[in-house]
Amino acid sequence: MNRRYDWPDVDQAALRAARTARLKEFCDEAGLDHILLQEPDNIRYATGYRSHLTADSAWHAALVSADGEAEVFVEYVDETIENPIADLPNVRALHPHPGWSPASANPRTWVRLVAGRIAAAGARRIGVDAIDVALVEALRRACPSVEFVPSSTAFYRVRRVKDPLEIVLVEAASRVNSLAMDAAMSIVAPGVTDDEILGEAARAQLKAGVEFVTHSVCNVRGGSGAWFARNASLREGDAYFFDIGCYGVGGYGSDAARTAFVGEPRREVFQAYQHLLAAYEIARDLARPGVRMSAIHRAVNDYLSRQGLGRTPYAIGHGIGLRLCELPVAANASLMDVDDTLETGMCIALEPETSVEAGGAIVVVKVEDNFVVEETGLRALTTPYPAEAALV
Amino acid sequence: MNRRYDWPDVDQAALRAARTARLKEFCDEAGLDHILLQEPDNIRYATGYRSHLTADSAWHAALVSADGEAEVFVEYVDETIENPIADLPNVRALHPHPGWSPASANPRTWVRLVAGRIAAAGARRIGVDAIDVALVEALRRACPSVEFVPSSTAFYRVRRVKDPLEIVLVEAASRVNSLAMDAAMSIVAPGVTDDEILGEAARAQLKAGVEFVTHSVCNVRGGSGAWFARNASLREGDAYFFDIGCYGVGGYGSDAARTAFVGEPRREVFQAYQHLLAAYEIARDLARPGVRMSAIHRAVNDYLSRQGLGRTPYAIGHGIGLRLCELPVAANASLMDVDDTLETGMCIALEPETSVEAGGAIVVVKVEDNFVVEETGLRALTTPYPAEAALV
Repeated sequence: MNRRYDWPDVDQAALRAARTARLKEFCDEAGLDHILLQEPDNIRYATGYRSHLTADSAWHAALVSADGEAEVFVEYVDETIENPIADLPNVRALHPHPGWSPASANPRTWVRLVAGRIAAAGARRIGVDAIDVALVEALRRACPSVEFVPSSTAFYRVRRVKDPLEIVLVEAASRVNSLAMDAAMSIVAPGVTDDEILGEAARAQLKAGVEFVTHSVCNVRGGSGAWFARNASLREGDAYFFDIGCYGVGGYGSDAARTAFVGEPRREVFQAYQHLLAAYEIARDLARPGVRMSAIHRAVNDYLSRQGLGRTPYAIGHGIGLRLCELPVAANASLMDVDDTLETGMCIALEPETSVEAGGAIVVVKVEDNFVVEETGLRALTTPYPAEAALV
Repeated sequence: MNRRYDWPDVDQAALRAARTARLKEFCDEAGLDHILLQEPDNIRYATGYRSHLTADSAWHAALVSADGEAEVFVEYVDETIENPIADLPNVRALHPHPGWSPASANPRTWVRLVAGRIAAAGARRIGVDAIDVALVEALRRACPSVEFVPSSTAFYRVRRVKDPLEIVLVEAASRVNSLAMDAAMSIVAPGVTDDEILGEAARAQLKAGVEFVTHSVCNVRGGSGAWFARNASLREGDAYFFDIGCYGVGGYGSDAARTAFVGEPRREVFQAYQHLLAAYEIARDLARPGVRMSAIHRAVNDYLSRQGLGRTPYAIGHGIGLRLCELPVAANASLMDVDDTLETGMCIALEPETSVEAGGAIVVVKVEDNFVVEETGLRALTTPYPAEAALV
């Protein structure tokens, strides 16, 4: 993979129209004339504007009408720029805004600038996403005739089912993430460190042109709940998992994981891995429109428990879209507000893990792929790595 | 750089004690008995717990007493684990929590679980960080006798001055980020793409053992306001900047940028770069305890304007710590709530840019390094890349 991946040439205007139509329907139902957004995924969905600059870029804001006309507040202009982006005619202006620090570091300035545009827009009832309570309370004082309606939960629910153009972009990100996992797998050998494997994966993602590396986690002889590299060298016989992700071109994510074996694993570890794959198969067969998310979670853990293996101690699945981890989630019903049913057009990650005692230590194995829900069941978006090939 | 960087062996208990003392002082002044946190940087500061798993892991929460005793809510356990981390005796429990989706995707469950622990802790007055307004309002309904005090601004102000142990960690991250910039510079040549340069940088960061790649931005012939790779091949004569960052071991950040020239740049571009370095020198000479942040910003832009060059259209400096971009910020005074003065022990990034018309296009050049404020002025934490060496 020497050059950028051949990303699909999605019709951006059509994609924006599809997302705006969905938001407009929601706004009309909720009686909102505008929405005010701070989360990069929500800003991208509502406006097309790419706001995810750094891991912490929580300083942008977007005021969007129910029709999708937007004003965006950014840190990198010092005067208002009208119609700043030829490809995004819906973005009417970029306004100067405090930046290089979270929005809540400069609440008075943030509120003054946003409240000024709210007044100019004549907004009356505004849905807001996951904005700091301090900022919303100050906006309410600054705009006493405007109603601010916390709406982040609703926004996540609106986005659960993807438009076909969104699915194309999730699939492209998943393909690239698969190539990056292959690149990481290709250097697995005794003496190679967890750090080196994660570095190889990130390089492959970025060389392919992803917008953002979302995470680089792994577990080498770390036991359950270990997520982080610690300069561990792989040894003959090790089972090792890594879990990586990215936002591809267009901002849609992929989140996936692979287990690698260094040489011949212990018999009990390999058996656990085979059972993990069997549990995974059960989840994939079960997942289709109309099935409850908790049922998928339960099916995996029931199978693993019957084999005397460790259960997946977290949600075995989650939605994937403009946010790496979003609704619907496949967890124990007690940890979800709504036990969603799968619908055609949802994109999900499935990520079972199991653990087994071997040689006096707990060994964790895990696998994760991305799928789209179609009428007859799941279609894989990541490229499965053959289990046999995982034996180095 | 084949192996992990030799990270400093900081006394974690002493570091935690220093941070807790600062928070306790704040809580006592504000009359808070607990704080409730959702931001990974605040959770790390208050508890030592590493919560930054993915770019979007906004599902954790920590309830922390004014004395630093913490309960942490995480997605990867399905039963409460008491005293889960030997190195963090202050973390009393990990509790199951909804995850793999933002906290606001499951507000009822999130509030039920957090409110239960608030009641058990007997908390009466709780400072909260940048938590979704919907969640705080629901907590107020669930815990009518508890007062929730929006405190994120205050938390950022508390953290502005670093403890000496924190400075050691910012410096280590800055050294590693410098090595990553060197690795990226080493492959600059005609025909190499922006994607490849960013990939090389991220690989170097991760191989060195950083906790997180925070951003990968660049500008090749993009004009002002362009931040993103677009599969642009470097050409003879190009000026190119990239801006990369990471969280090192311990979670402290580095944010830095370099301009590279491919062969001989146009005369006007090279002159602009020399003026940029002169403006940078002015900022570095000016920055010392007692100087206002806006004065640093103004000095850079006044110099650039006098040369007929484009000004830096954003804050030319920002704090750096457990968050990549935090207070204090060096911006135009109209974009800050408080025009802070520099104090000994602050860690800052300075990042001037300028732009010049050359060959019918706007070329942007930029440089960024990290510094600690000492009594006599700034001490560099990143390793400066010699300007001459930037000529490939």
